[in-house]
Amino acid sequence: MQFSRGSVRLSRSLATRSRFSALASPPNHLFHRSLSTTSILREERSPTEVISSPTPKRSKFRTFFRALGGATLVSIAGGICIFVYVTQKDRHPGTQLPYDPEKKTIVILGSGWGATSLLKTLDTSEYNVVIISPKNYFLFTPLLPSVAVGTLSPKAILQPTRYLARHKARVVTVIEAEAKEIDPFNKTVTFEDDTEIKGEVSHTTIPYDYLVHAVGAEVQTFGIPGVQEKACFMKELGDAEIVRVHIHRLLIFQAYNNDDNVDAKTIVVGIESAAFPGQDDTEIDRLLHIVIVGGGPTGIEVSGEIHDFLEDDLKAWYPELAGRIRISLVEALPSVLPMFSKQLIEYTESTFKESKIEILTKTMVKEVKDRSVVLQMPDKSIQEVPCGMVVWAGGNKGRKITQDLMAKYPSAQTNRRGLTVDDHLRLAGVNGSIFAIGDCTSTSYAPTAQVASQQGAYLARVFAQMAKKNTLEAKLTQLEHYETTVTDAVEKTNLNSEIETTRKLISNVKVRPFHYSHQGSLAYIGSDKAIADLPFANGNIASAGVATFLFWRSAYLSTLFSLRNRTLVANDWLITKIFGRDLSRD
Amino acid sequence: MQFSRGSVRLSRSLATRSRFSALASPPNHLFHRSLSTTSILREERSPTEVISSPTPKRSKFRTFFRALGGATLVSIAGGICIFVYVTQKDRHPGTQLPYDPEKKTIVILGSGWGATSLLKTLDTSEYNVVIISPKNYFLFTPLLPSVAVGTLSPKAILQPTRYLARHKARVVTVIEAEAKEIDPFNKTVTFEDDTEIKGEVSHTTIPYDYLVHAVGAEVQTFGIPGVQEKACFMKELGDAEIVRVHIHRLLIFQAYNNDDNVDAKTIVVGIESAAFPGQDDTEIDRLLHIVIVGGGPTGIEVSGEIHDFLEDDLKAWYPELAGRIRISLVEALPSVLPMFSKQLIEYTESTFKESKIEILTKTMVKEVKDRSVVLQMPDKSIQEVPCGMVVWAGGNKGRKITQDLMAKYPSAQTNRRGLTVDDHLRLAGVNGSIFAIGDCTSTSYAPTAQVASQQGAYLARVFAQMAKKNTLEAKLTQLEHYETTVTDAVEKTNLNSEIETTRKLISNVKVRPFHYSHQGSLAYIGSDKAIADLPFANGNIASAGVATFLFWRSAYLSTLFSLRNRTLVANDWLITKIFGRDLSRD
Repeated sequence: MQFSRGSVRLSRSLATRSRFSALASPPNHLFHRSLSTTSILREERSPTEVISSPTPKRSKFRTFFRALGGATLVSIAGGICIFVYVTQKDRHPGTQLPYDPEKKTIVILGSGWGATSLLKTLDTSEYNVVIISPKNYFLFTPLLPSVAVGTLSPKAILQPTRYLARHKARVVTVIEAEAKEIDPFNKTVTFEDDTEIKGEVSHTTIPYDYLVHAVGAEVQTFGIPGVQEKACFMKELGDAEIVRVHIHRLLIFQAYNNDDNVDAKTIVVGIESAAFPGQDDTEIDRLLHIVIVGGGPTGIEVSGEIHDFLEDDLKAWYPELAGRIRISLVEALPSVLPMFSKQLIEYTESTFKESKIEILTKTMVKEVKDRSVVLQMPDKSIQEVPCGMVVWAGGNKGRKITQDLMAKYPSAQTNRRGLTVDDHLRLAGVNGSIFAIGDCTSTSYAPTAQVASQQGAYLARVFAQMAKKNTLEAKLTQLEHYETTVTDAVEKTNLNSEIETTRKLISNVKVRPFHYSHQGSLAYIGSDKAIADLPFANGNIASAGVATFLFWRSAYLSTLFSLRNRTLVANDWLITKIFGRDLSRD
Repeated sequence: MQFSRGSVRLSRSLATRSRFSALASPPNHLFHRSLSTTSILREERSPTEVISSPTPKRSKFRTFFRALGGATLVSIAGGICIFVYVTQKDRHPGTQLPYDPEKKTIVILGSGWGATSLLKTLDTSEYNVVIISPKNYFLFTPLLPSVAVGTLSPKAILQPTRYLARHKARVVTVIEAEAKEIDPFNKTVTFEDDTEIKGEVSHTTIPYDYLVHAVGAEVQTFGIPGVQEKACFMKELGDAEIVRVHIHRLLIFQAYNNDDNVDAKTIVVGIESAAFPGQDDTEIDRLLHIVIVGGGPTGIEVSGEIHDFLEDDLKAWYPELAGRIRISLVEALPSVLPMFSKQLIEYTESTFKESKIEILTKTMVKEVKDRSVVLQMPDKSIQEVPCGMVVWAGGNKGRKITQDLMAKYPSAQTNRRGLTVDDHLRLAGVNGSIFAIGDCTSTSYAPTAQVASQQGAYLARVFAQMAKKNTLEAKLTQLEHYETTVTDAVEKTNLNSEIETTRKLISNVKVRPFHYSHQGSLAYIGSDKAIADLPFANGNIASAGVATFLFWRSAYLSTLFSLRNRTLVANDWLITKIFGRDLSRD
């Protein structure tokens, strides 16, 4: 009754509402412009309004609340419209310029950070572009550890290269195949068609005018025995899946061997231990010991994510195991995260101590065995540590195609770490038709996503400049040829002046050398904490903790290449927050 | 500045708002009950309303709008709270009763529809329960075709069995292993530990008091050559993934062999066709011809989903291919969907005609080859149809463990279609310690999820009844024993009467035979259309179209076993609607 009267009073009182009040929402990223205008309109009507409101104080909150309500509606409705419009536009790319034999052809090898950032920035109206990569997607590697524990679905951090290609001005051919050979003298690339549909393997060779070598690197195992065969990695998407399945296997295996609740053991005493000889506690602890090798950001994030997985999800579903799982992080250097500032390293170490993640610095892996890892401790003593799984997160090594390319220029390509390039990212020893970016190069910069993507963007600008120069030069030759035919003195002078200006313009087209600007280093260290080293003025700001974690998330969200991926990642984060990570082995 | 002034004035003008206004929301799934009442009550007072409001017309809309605004806020806030509360409660199950040697032990083989529905309904306080299944999750099979084309993520239709188990009154042991042998005479089950962590394979044998055989069936290939090796299936999650990858391979392969835009072909004429001998149009059409075998709901839904995938997504990303892909549906019977009513079959056929999906009835598959499928046409003629992929969606076959179990009762288990059970789902020939449900049985019912889950729920009630009977019988024997010791006449008569009542109670504990109540048949047929056959009164309602599609979706949503899965599926549907399906091969 009360209630109903309330609503009646409401409808009466509402009768005197002003026309524009509904729009008086708090600043809102979507409606900013519309709002400022309405506030102007409100201005005019204000006097009447003031009079018409008898009791100003009593309902401050409700006032605000109702205004907020109206605004929410508007924002939600508007937000959805804009969102849908943008996404639908993305989904239905228009027609593209066709292949143009007149234009030069750029062949890009790879679909990683370098290649994707290049493709994104490149003006394809001036070039034909072909991308050759064994993967038909760009992988947002920094979030790979999250996929390994099921925080994110693989889909969320993948961007099909075709999505990007279809939105360029001119058609871009995306070839899912592995480039097998580069012939820099005849300017051709040969790739292998690796699809199993056709049955037999076949090769195709295509010519290029410019080649961008952005194939990245593969995992460096330093020839340590057992690593290649027995360790899990954290480089490709497949690796994350393997780690995920592996963790679950450990648990599944335990689930009925050490289930304190009820199982074979309690149903028929003895049977179980008979069925699994040596399934004593030490063996179980062995299985539940996870060793991560490499104290770089990847290793740290993997440790952090696995720890979260145990904390957040395992305790609920495998209460009897949660307490027994151990994580050890092995690093050969005297400290983890060398690229971070001292206090952040200390912060990480203390956080890991709380999380019961053991950090072993100055420790080297000598061998990975089926059920253990052999370590050389700081005191040079050799220890064999039993463990259920080893995650190898360290080191880059040039791919075969990169090594082959280097072998073709023995005098210029001497650096065993990777391709040598000049300050314009041109491959040393080559006439300028080959560029190399990202992890396959050996530069003074760290082999990070940041460097690669900046190099890609730089290269796009280089190509733009070159295109500009070409057009000007074409014009020049035309003018010069015309000039010879002209006899009239006046016209000649005009022409000469025009030729002059064109020459000037050409000389003005300059390509600055590549310069890397460090945007800072970020790493997630588990338990909703992250660390950040951000360059500021001449020094840098070091920050750590939960706030930094939120910054880490927003930074990654904004780094993701597409609205689609941003939404998917944010969505997965929310889903995981609500429902926890996925325990099933799919 | 302006802005702030504006909003201040606004708050004044709104000052006369009523206390309960916030609750005057429109019908809303969260507030439904409270609302219907208010709206009625508002009705009564409307006269006053009209009088008291000075300008009723001018502000009707605004009134409603602002009220709606407030309500939206409340609903959103409230909704989120409830949702979070429920989900968090789900995620943190409480402690469970321990294993009780006094109670009987039920061993359930399988984690499909039958087993899961049994576990869900079973009162575990009366029994110890062990689940043995090679999968650690329940798979919502009806939506499997959606996973095959990337409409849904696998995670969305999986429910880890542990989630369910952890919410039961007593601990339920979930063993991820494949049961290898049942010994009905010693009442034991032997299972194989299939995890690769330990290296060697090991066996465990556990005893049972009651065994529920719910292992389902495997794909029936009728021994047709090539099916097992060369066709894709649509039964397990892995199958869906294979189909998905396979479709993408077809496209990827085409992407640079028949890209009318630009590619090897246009860059260097001739090279490509040389590199891929016989890559002429017929070969391409061959690759893009998808053959689906089996005109049951699965086959129909697979065809529909693949068609949608081509329509919705391919046209945008592979414009040059979209037109060339062909889908053929092969069915041996004279018509598809025999379980549906005539007009629905016709509707499906006409829809498929529009979708350019060719239906071949009375056609039998004779062999599946690498690049073609051999068909026997209605006129008995043999045709070899070139195709890029064959999806086999027909037939069930008993698993090995089921066959072995049958072999132990040659006289009672004679039906080659599956296990024979009595009307209480007890395995024929056994003393009542083994029950069988779902696709592994040969009943008069179709081998559907509906039947299996009803059988599971029925079995749970049976176990409840048996438990009740046991307790009464225990009481009875106690009384009877006590009665012999008693001498006093009065007490004796009292006892006798109590014994009588107990006997009556026991005789009242009756287990009715299993009765299947058909809830109707549903199938998705592509292009946002579905068909439904719903029993009504004595006849049934047949409906088809887009509305039915929405019904189909809501029906499946409500059938899903957990809020988690409902949310994930709904979420995936939304994501797919917005961003389309996932093109990348992960």
